[in-house]
Amino acid sequence: MSTSTPVRLRIFSLNCWGIRYLSKHCVQRFAMIRDHLNREQHDLVLLQEIWCEKDYLFLKRELGNTYRYSHYFKSGVIGSGLAVFSTHKIHDAFLYRYSLNGYPYMAHHGDWFGGKAVGKVLLNISGMNVHVYVTHLHAEYCRKCDSYLPHRVVQSWELQQFIRHTSEGADVVVFGGDLNMHPEDLGNRLLRTYTGLKDCFTETEKFDGCEGGLTHIIDNPFTNKQDLARFGRGIRIDYILFKGSERVDVKCESLSTTTGTAAGHPFPLSDHEAVSAELQLCVRKMPSREEDKHNSSATDQLPDLINIITEARTEVKVGVHCAERMRYTAARTGAMGLALLLLELAIAAVPCFSLGTDQPFPKASFYLLGVLCFTILLSTTLLYVFYSIEVKALQGAEDQMRLAMSSLQERLKECPRSISQDLKRKEPDSQDLRSPDPDA
Amino acid sequence: MSTSTPVRLRIFSLNCWGIRYLSKHCVQRFAMIRDHLNREQHDLVLLQEIWCEKDYLFLKRELGNTYRYSHYFKSGVIGSGLAVFSTHKIHDAFLYRYSLNGYPYMAHHGDWFGGKAVGKVLLNISGMNVHVYVTHLHAEYCRKCDSYLPHRVVQSWELQQFIRHTSEGADVVVFGGDLNMHPEDLGNRLLRTYTGLKDCFTETEKFDGCEGGLTHIIDNPFTNKQDLARFGRGIRIDYILFKGSERVDVKCESLSTTTGTAAGHPFPLSDHEAVSAELQLCVRKMPSREEDKHNSSATDQLPDLINIITEARTEVKVGVHCAERMRYTAARTGAMGLALLLLELAIAAVPCFSLGTDQPFPKASFYLLGVLCFTILLSTTLLYVFYSIEVKALQGAEDQMRLAMSSLQERLKECPRSISQDLKRKEPDSQDLRSPDPDA
Repeated sequence: MSTSTPVRLRIFSLNCWGIRYLSKHCVQRFAMIRDHLNREQHDLVLLQEIWCEKDYLFLKRELGNTYRYSHYFKSGVIGSGLAVFSTHKIHDAFLYRYSLNGYPYMAHHGDWFGGKAVGKVLLNISGMNVHVYVTHLHAEYCRKCDSYLPHRVVQSWELQQFIRHTSEGADVVVFGGDLNMHPEDLGNRLLRTYTGLKDCFTETEKFDGCEGGLTHIIDNPFTNKQDLARFGRGIRIDYILFKGSERVDVKCESLSTTTGTAAGHPFPLSDHEAVSAELQLCVRKMPSREEDKHNSSATDQLPDLINIITEARTEVKVGVHCAERMRYTAARTGAMGLALLLLELAIAAVPCFSLGTDQPFPKASFYLLGVLCFTILLSTTLLYVFYSIEVKALQGAEDQMRLAMSSLQERLKECPRSISQDLKRKEPDSQDLRSPDPDA
Repeated sequence: MSTSTPVRLRIFSLNCWGIRYLSKHCVQRFAMIRDHLNREQHDLVLLQEIWCEKDYLFLKRELGNTYRYSHYFKSGVIGSGLAVFSTHKIHDAFLYRYSLNGYPYMAHHGDWFGGKAVGKVLLNISGMNVHVYVTHLHAEYCRKCDSYLPHRVVQSWELQQFIRHTSEGADVVVFGGDLNMHPEDLGNRLLRTYTGLKDCFTETEKFDGCEGGLTHIIDNPFTNKQDLARFGRGIRIDYILFKGSERVDVKCESLSTTTGTAAGHPFPLSDHEAVSAELQLCVRKMPSREEDKHNSSATDQLPDLINIITEARTEVKVGVHCAERMRYTAARTGAMGLALLLLELAIAAVPCFSLGTDQPFPKASFYLLGVLCFTILLSTTLLYVFYSIEVKALQGAEDQMRLAMSSLQERLKECPRSISQDLKRKEPDSQDLRSPDPDA
């Protein structure tokens, strides 16, 4: 650690809505994003939904003077959409592709083709190891009847696993992205509680922007007002999270969002609002004491965490059940297709059904039925393979959750006293939380 | 760290060749594996190719008294085949699925269906954080003309990335598995050099088993003698690797392999030989000094590492070229299929070609041609999507390699003197390597 004076880190996160030929004013908006970024001069820019590599290359070329370093994560059929621009050198990059990400036949939703993932880049800022994560989870198309919920929960599970396992050597962890989850949604709680990441919106000393930190708002001209109407003015689904370590203390000094408009332009940067945070990184003087504090804080969250994982397991189990049912349906339909195809072949082979001009079975219908059987057989085989992969991935996540639960429950048993004391301390009726009384 | 007396860790790794109905004597061999493991009482058992979950559950049930803890990694259509059995509690498990793993249409090779991955489990042994990795890479079916080489290189790249990024908090790293690579193959060098993992075979104080540590040998009754003939007695493709840390010193005390037979049985445990290692873990007394040594050892490997990554990039570029060519072929064939289909529709629509009884274009041929066009269109679309994913994954790996190279080259520039001194020290003609002379 080469510094002991606070370092300021300005972070920007935006879902760019960069679907060429489908998103409105795509080219103009990327030019606006370029101008905005060049003007604001952040340290770290985390972008999502840059689906076309050309748009990334445009930004890379145009932002080269301000943000010397950048990385674009490639994944799926059209890319992961994730890009990082930085004024600090990027030393290493690593991508984790989520095992589940929607269905290829839901082409109008398109998530599967995007190969959703979490990207990590390593920075060294004034001697501090800063691990930066950017992600974009599967969209929520219908909150009431969300068939993608198990996929999003598994993505959240894998996201927290990836962050926990790859950030052990980090002095500072910074996360930005579009989680497609409301602040208190299951996956969001799972991510924050298990990793210990703090939400800039709840931690900031100063906030400026949409009320409640909303990032998908009714006032944005690109959003579908009907979809958002039931949530009031909008929802908060884009986040900047952070975590310090026993060596570095991190504080969020300010947070801001755009507000559905861009000064001097007829439309905003994107259909999402951009989030900008200013963090203060400060090397601690007494690392060991803080480490104790850090461990204790993790311990008093154990009961919450166990409840959240139980909830996640239930969702994943529902997902397993659905996927197994779909696989069974695919198998049954495939078997019917095969039986019909065999029947057709038998008809063709047996002379009394011969397909001459005077046949009882019309030739055209015969061949069309053949095509139908063949199509059914092929598509159900592909679906069977796809659902088998889905079942395995869901079961795998559930196994890992069970294992983690067992380990956490053991930790809970080992320290019941300290937790009950902590819980007592947290009881608002019996104790003023802000009291610094050490005997409380 | 609660211990300062050496701890012994006995590790076992075996590719079980557990393809139900295809592998010979599968049920009997799993019973033999159970007996072997119950008799030998290792601390840690890393198994590959348990393709059927029933076989894992059989081992879990039968080994429960000896190995209380276990985890089976689920992935792909039929599972990753990876399982861990341990006498120490498994606290956490995490799976990374490789982005590339062969082709689904190469069903006779079957690798794609296996969902190859690297699994990690966390153990706590006498206060030490032991990170355990198990993997199985894509098979090499033809060494001279290996179309899967880019995939295996990308798997090695992702494997070393996963290990490096997830083992920062480890006191001890243990790796076991079937790499399907000879000791000096590119992917193997990449893995060892970048992670700093040491090969038990080259580090062991005592060895017992097949000459040269071979694990896929001509003397094994299940192996194809013809395939192995050109490599002499066999090849070494199964490994146990390890690494200590600044806090824990790890030594390999002994290593052994089975030798193509199993005492008292007419056939061996598998078509691969099992590898068993005994490691000695010893908490260091002066961690900081060792850390310096560790860093310096990483630094003097930089030129080698840069050369290896350059080599890997070349292989991946060849892979990108091949995948792009295949994608182009799929697109062209698909376009031809579409053109033919449109022509058919035009024939059906234009009255002069009408498909009456006296038509010039026979009805049967017309429909069969339609089926053919449709099949071509569907399969080329699927192939196009598949090759696009392959291209993106290969390009993504190459981008990450370029980034890593740039970072390593910068490190190399920062410490050219120390390296040239190190290289000079390593020159066998000018200096006796075993001399402890500090001024050398």
